[in-house]
Amino acid sequence: MRITLYYVPSNASMAPHLLLNEIGCPFELKLVDRENNEHQSAEYLKLNPSGLIPVLVDEGRPIHQTAAILLHLTDKFPSAGFAPGVGDARRPALYQWLFYLSNTLQPELITYFYPHRLADDEAMAERVKHHAEQRVAGMLDLLEAHLAAQGPFMLGADFSITDLMLLMLCRWTRMHARPAQTRPHLKRLIETVAARPAVVKTFAVEKLPLPWY
Amino acid sequence: MRITLYYVPSNASMAPHLLLNEIGCPFELKLVDRENNEHQSAEYLKLNPSGLIPVLVDEGRPIHQTAAILLHLTDKFPSAGFAPGVGDARRPALYQWLFYLSNTLQPELITYFYPHRLADDEAMAERVKHHAEQRVAGMLDLLEAHLAAQGPFMLGADFSITDLMLLMLCRWTRMHARPAQTRPHLKRLIETVAARPAVVKTFAVEKLPLPWY
Repeated sequence: MRITLYYVPSNASMAPHLLLNEIGCPFELKLVDRENNEHQSAEYLKLNPSGLIPVLVDEGRPIHQTAAILLHLTDKFPSAGFAPGVGDARRPALYQWLFYLSNTLQPELITYFYPHRLADDEAMAERVKHHAEQRVAGMLDLLEAHLAAQGPFMLGADFSITDLMLLMLCRWTRMHARPAQTRPHLKRLIETVAARPAVVKTFAVEKLPLPWY
Repeated sequence: MRITLYYVPSNASMAPHLLLNEIGCPFELKLVDRENNEHQSAEYLKLNPSGLIPVLVDEGRPIHQTAAILLHLTDKFPSAGFAPGVGDARRPALYQWLFYLSNTLQPELITYFYPHRLADDEAMAERVKHHAEQRVAGMLDLLEAHLAAQGPFMLGADFSITDLMLLMLCRWTRMHARPAQTRPHLKRLIETVAARPAVVKTFAVEKLPLPWY
């Protein structure tokens, strides 16, 4: 078995990196030299035509998209127990929240980090960024209400890949006026997940500066 | 078995509606009265706290998120053959492209349709909309290159839910300067999928005005 994760510290590659350490399977990490645009090189684009990080190569087969990699790894290692399988009554909620995080919270955070993509100039970018931060706050409020009603984890009693995805995205709000952890149920989830040995190890390997979230 | 899809014509509910007609299982359609904000009512928010359309209720259990509903229905009706199952070598690509469509193309189209969410005023909204349309064009180019190399369908030789999702999103570009169908491989896929009897039936039930794409 040969699994390689192409990563950059603190990037979207973190969720798959966390999961690989949780599973404890052998894997190789390849640091992408983003400063020198390695992710835009012909070789990288062959693995991931979107030029984004991460990409996972499993037995020679590349797969991109963070949440797709998470689902694939849990399908491959079902006994690790990080996702309810097909046929489990919680499988629909697994899909639902992974897509919500991936297509609602994450794109708004990307707009927050890269507002120039939608703007003509610096002043307009600042305004786009402001609106994106406001919208992220509303999404975090929705997640907080969900955890209050059906937590402590995203799928209820049991920890899953959805919580790893959520931890990663919550970290990205740490410079906001109202970061994720200002909400009590999100704070408890973040602290619980961040204390897991595989998570501590991943933060150490990625050499993340404080604050972590 | 009781399946109910809450829908609005031409909305994101179209992909699950298409799939239900493809599967041919019994289901009930409930038109959401969006003009009167039914999707923001307490009753609807209990089914989908994001207040978005669609939501599917399967044996009393609500599931929201368009692509999550697609995956759930193919898990529930595996013999219908609209998605490779877990263990199939094409399952990772199924996840990958569903997430790409859902978290990259669809959010950019949502920004195109609702630019005010990121803008201070009408003039700024017009500029945001312009940038979103440019970005959508680049994403369609990437999909076109993928189909040229590995088509004719998103997963290769076989039609799948990914193509239904793609058809729906391609429709949403029909007013763009460069709509999806100006690209030959996308055009062929759109025309092939739009000619399927279940698709023709869905367009008729949703009473869609021309042009369909």
